[in-house]
Amino acid sequence: MNNTSAMDVRTSRRNLLGQATAAAAAISALSLSGCSESAKRPFAKKASGGLIADGDTILLQGDSITDAGRARGQENNPNDGRALGGGYAYLIAADLLCERADANLKIYNRGISGHKVFQLAERWDKDCIAIKPNLVSILIGVNDIWHKLNGQYNGTLEVYEKDYRALLERTKKELPGVKLVVCEPFVLRCGAVNEKWFPEFDGYRAAAKKVAGEFGAVFVPFQSAFDEAVKKAPPAHWAADGVHPTIAGAYLMARTWLAAVAGARA
Amino acid sequence: MNNTSAMDVRTSRRNLLGQATAAAAAISALSLSGCSESAKRPFAKKASGGLIADGDTILLQGDSITDAGRARGQENNPNDGRALGGGYAYLIAADLLCERADANLKIYNRGISGHKVFQLAERWDKDCIAIKPNLVSILIGVNDIWHKLNGQYNGTLEVYEKDYRALLERTKKELPGVKLVVCEPFVLRCGAVNEKWFPEFDGYRAAAKKVAGEFGAVFVPFQSAFDEAVKKAPPAHWAADGVHPTIAGAYLMARTWLAAVAGARA
Repeated sequence: MNNTSAMDVRTSRRNLLGQATAAAAAISALSLSGCSESAKRPFAKKASGGLIADGDTILLQGDSITDAGRARGQENNPNDGRALGGGYAYLIAADLLCERADANLKIYNRGISGHKVFQLAERWDKDCIAIKPNLVSILIGVNDIWHKLNGQYNGTLEVYEKDYRALLERTKKELPGVKLVVCEPFVLRCGAVNEKWFPEFDGYRAAAKKVAGEFGAVFVPFQSAFDEAVKKAPPAHWAADGVHPTIAGAYLMARTWLAAVAGARA
Repeated sequence: MNNTSAMDVRTSRRNLLGQATAAAAAISALSLSGCSESAKRPFAKKASGGLIADGDTILLQGDSITDAGRARGQENNPNDGRALGGGYAYLIAADLLCERADANLKIYNRGISGHKVFQLAERWDKDCIAIKPNLVSILIGVNDIWHKLNGQYNGTLEVYEKDYRALLERTKKELPGVKLVVCEPFVLRCGAVNEKWFPEFDGYRAAAKKVAGEFGAVFVPFQSAFDEAVKKAPPAHWAADGVHPTIAGAYLMARTWLAAVAGARA
């Protein structure tokens, strides 16, 4: 399942630069376009379910990038616009609920602003296991380094990797058959993100990719998607403070996630 | 410019039913997919700007369907996720700001819940003219009939048409060269929408299409998009109360709007 990452990097690049290949076109079509492309190409038709099966409960987890101001009061309602927040989780849900309207999907967002891996673990029973998701997607890591750089947190890269591994281990154990999606932490080079973050931040990205591989999770290559995007418009167009995506950034994330997850083989 | 409506109806149908034609594929690709399709097909490449030019200021106007809970405090900020609300306006903006990241677009939402055409007119100086939009998109009409059916408003279909004509007349006069988009009012047959609405509601849709034609506006055929959609999932999947779209409904609207506007010739 890991060989989707290289493919996805190429796909994401090609989608943005406008250089199509049949595969890229098929996968980009699956991202946020109508059904017509998938009906047109046998490859795309086979791939059209990807990791998401009819009837699936999908959970998006993480920090503020996932949270995106979601309404906590409605968090128990699946597919609720307010409960999905104003970021990539909302965009993913909107796409899936339209493009797969008859698939009876239930999509939840339990991202919480400011969280690091250990904080996910602390609430994992309520905010993951209890939901009984068929697919769990996690985007976590930027606060693990950011808060450390700010002196607010004494975790290290090793702690991040260890915590993440334990979280996925536990998830697999308590939800047999669960489909895992590990999203690459990313930053844009502007705002709060400065030279102090590097090269250390690259280690967090590598650690996320490593644990994804260990658990057979789909890896969503957000950093390379943004690295290509900044060739078209400056970093602040995608995330004004370098960390929190604009709506353009959120859209790019949703497209990248859908390509990786909808295009992935179960 | 009016011959896009018939094309759009066919396109919307094919996108949803998965039966592609080259034109449908090209236009669906323009809706919410990556750049790769437009680079692949000369037709699509030519059409890729559609009605939207680099540097355009785009204004989305209407009632609660457009409003979708937007944050009033940020309404003067273009491209602001909170100010764009949680509906089709947000989705359109996210697509455009990602797919046309280098186009320097500025997108505003000034929809207000509960409004009818005359209420748009009352605030048109502040909420349209002052923004100096290059492209104005209006979705209005459902309250003109709904409030009438509820006994809260004594306007008629004739008043709706007259008011709408006057509004577009004024817009063209005060914003020479403005590009107009008239969105078809629509309903789903569930929730608050019952037999009392028909056949009268069809008159409102026809009136919107008529004034669109009179002013050379792009007409966005939302009703037919939803008429096809309900073949895949019940009305409530698209708008629980028959009027206010779910996120699936909002996504379908955004895709339909982008096909009509991005595929339209300037």
